[in-house]
Amino acid sequence: MGYYKHHVFFCTNVRDDGREYCQQHGANGMRDYAKGCVKKLNMNGEGKVRINNAGCLDRCSEGPVMVVYPDNVWYTYVDKNDVDEIISEHLQNGRVVERLKI
Amino acid sequence: MGYYKHHVFFCTNVRDDGREYCQQHGANGMRDYAKGCVKKLNMNGEGKVRINNAGCLDRCSEGPVMVVYPDNVWYTYVDKNDVDEIISEHLQNGRVVERLKI
Repeated sequence: MGYYKHHVFFCTNVRDDGREYCQQHGANGMRDYAKGCVKKLNMNGEGKVRINNAGCLDRCSEGPVMVVYPDNVWYTYVDKNDVDEIISEHLQNGRVVERLKI
Repeated sequence: MGYYKHHVFFCTNVRDDGREYCQQHGANGMRDYAKGCVKKLNMNGEGKVRINNAGCLDRCSEGPVMVVYPDNVWYTYVDKNDVDEIISEHLQNGRVVERLKI
């Protein structure tokens, strides 16, 4: 068992070279939303879940992206409903959300 | 096999509340150094290695910290020699560097 059961990284990168980037899809807001949900559910902390922001994860064209480790599962998401589903299905019940997987 | 063989996150967080933080131990510089080494070794990219920065990984008192996923191995480091050893031992040869593990 690692330090966290699920360690989630949201790419919150910003680009100024004309290429797509996760932040233009509201990555920071979704990261904050996920963080809040996990706290409310008392799922945050050692042995449980950690929601982090990260620099460019280099899957820009598939963004916005997040990755759940050590599970090694990558997701894209559009809105809070998607984040809710990832939390309730994957983080709470260990079931990968196939429709959002990349 | 995931998108990256080894996905490395350096905590590069800064605090202003008097508590310790990874950036005061030169985390950004070490992240840049690691990134450069991995590029020189042609180990960066899909199916290989990605070096990322991340927000607070919440192991501040053990900092500076980094984590290698999906391996789920956490390290601390002091200088470039430590980063070199993690790259040559762990990332190139799959051997955990026990002396730096946290």
